[in-house]
Amino acid sequence: MEIQKLKDLLKKAYAPYSNFQVAACAIDENGKEYYGVNVENAAYPSGICAERSALFGSVAYGAKVGTFKEIHIISKKEGIISPCAGCRQVMTEFMPPEAKVYQYSNNAKQVRINTVAELVPYSILESDIK
Amino acid sequence: MEIQKLKDLLKKAYAPYSNFQVAACAIDENGKEYYGVNVENAAYPSGICAERSALFGSVAYGAKVGTFKEIHIISKKEGIISPCAGCRQVMTEFMPPEAKVYQYSNNAKQVRINTVAELVPYSILESDIK
Amino acid sequence: MEIQKLKDLLKKAYAPYSNFQVAACAIDENGKEYYGVNVENAAYPSGICAERSALFGSVAYGAKVGTFKEIHIISKKEGIISPCAGCRQVMTEFMPPEAKVYQYSNNAKQVRINTVAELVPYSILESDIK
Amino acid sequence: MEIQKLKDLLKKAYAPYSNFQVAACAIDENGKEYYGVNVENAAYPSGICAERSALFGSVAYGAKVGTFKEIHIISKKEGIISPCAGCRQVMTEFMPPEAKVYQYSNNAKQVRINTVAELVPYSILESDIK
Repeated sequence: MEIQKLKDLLKKAYAPYSNFQVAACAIDENGKEYYGVNVENAAYPSGICAERSALFGSVAYGAKVGTFKEIHIISKKEGIISPCAGCRQVMTEFMPPEAKVYQYSNNAKQVRINTVAELVPYSILESDIK
Repeated sequence: MEIQKLKDLLKKAYAPYSNFQVAACAIDENGKEYYGVNVENAAYPSGICAERSALFGSVAYGAKVGTFKEIHIISKKEGIISPCAGCRQVMTEFMPPEAKVYQYSNNAKQVRINTVAELVPYSILESDIK
Repeated sequence: MEIQKLKDLLKKAYAPYSNFQVAACAIDENGKEYYGVNVENAAYPSGICAERSALFGSVAYGAKVGTFKEIHIISKKEGIISPCAGCRQVMTEFMPPEAKVYQYSNNAKQVRINTVAELVPYSILESDIK
Repeated sequence: MEIQKLKDLLKKAYAPYSNFQVAACAIDENGKEYYGVNVENAAYPSGICAERSALFGSVAYGAKVGTFKEIHIISKKEGIISPCAGCRQVMTEFMPPEAKVYQYSNNAKQVRINTVAELVPYSILESDIK
C-alpha cells in the first residue's frame, strides 16, 4: 500500500480522550484496501481501535472474513506500534495465520512485519468452541 | 434511505455463532450513507454489532463523530429490532440527542422511530468525565 | 447498603488513564452485596466499568444472573453519575426490568433512582435473538 | 491452586448462548485467589470471558493491578484451552511479563504453562501511549 495514504489517515482518528491517534489499512485477498482509525468514547471501553475499525467496517462493503492477507498500522508513537491483543483476537478471525501485520513507526521509516500466528500464539478459533 | 438496500445488506452479515444477522445504515449531516453488519468472533465478546460497525467504520472515510442524523437498523428478527445498549452508548457520541433511530421489522413493513435521547435517557458524555 | 462503604470503594478504582474513579455495589435477591470498581487498560477499549465489574465478578461467587434487585453507583463526578449504556446492556441480563439503579453524587447527598427499564427502554433479551 | 476447585467452578459459568463454559482463577502476589467464569449476554459483544471476570472483579476486593503472578484456566473443551487475545490484553496490565498462565484440558490431566510474554509478544503498555 501507499504509505503516505496511511500517514494521512492519522489525521482522521477520533481520539479526544487519549490524544493517541492510530490508523490502519487492511487488505483482502483481492488486494482491496479498507481503512480504519481509532474512535474513542466518553465511556472508554465503548471505543474501538483502528485495526478493528478497518476490519469490522469492511464486511458490509463486501470483504470476506478470513481472507485478509495484510494489515498495516501506524500511530502517533515515534517508535514502532504493535496492535493491542484485543485487535489481535479479531485478526485471527479475519486473517489466516500466515497473513502479515505491518507495524510502522510514526515517520514510517521503520517497520516490523509479523505474521498473525507470531502475534497470537495458540489462537482461539471456531473449532475450539464447537 | 432505500430500504431494499438495507434488506440486501443482511446477507453480508458474518454471524456464524448466533445465526442472527443484523444490518445498519448510518447517515451523516451531509446525507452520506455508511453501512455496517454484525461481525462475530469465536471469542464472543470480541465481535461487534452492525450499528457500531457502520459508525466506527465511517470515520476513516471522512465522517465526523457527533454529526450523524439518522441510523437505520434491520435484522433477522420478524418483529422490530432495537439496538443493544452497547451500541446506544456509541450512538451518544456519534449523534446528537435529537437524531433518529429507525428500527425495522425484518420485512421492513413496520418501523419504530426513536430519538437517541429516548433510547439513552441520562446519557454519559465527554463533559461528565472531565 | 451502607453508603460509606460505597464511597470508600472509590479509592480502589484503577483509573490511571481517565483519572475518573467509579465504584458500584450490586445486590442480589438474597441481599448479598458484590462490589466493583472501574479497571482501565492501556488499550482503552479493553478496560471495564465499575458496574460490569461488580456484576460479572459475582457469578463465580454464586450469584445468579437475572436475580439482582439493586445496583448502587458513585463516582468522582460532583453531580449524579449515570451508568454508561454498555453497562446498562449487562444490567438487562442480570436484573429484571423493575430492579433499581441508585445513582449518587460524589458526596452521596443526592441520589437518582431509576428502574432498569427506565434506563434501557426497548431492551434486547435472549428471546429476541433466538 | 487446588485443581478440583477450578473444575467445580465450571458449573457456575453463565453460557446459555455458546454453551461453552470457562473458569479461571487468578492469584496475586500475596497468594490470594480470585475466581471468574464466563458470563454471556444476549448481545454477544457485551459478555465477558472467565479470565477477565476474575481479574477485573479482584480490584474492588483489594487486589493490585500489575501484581498477579498466575492465572489458571479450564473449559468445557476436551483439550487444552488458550485464553482469547482480548483476555491476554487485560493480562498484560494485571500481570508482569514473566507471570504464568496455566492452561488445562477439561479433565485437568494436561496443562500447558506459558508466560504472559509468550502469549502476547510485543505487548502494548502504558508507556506506549503516553
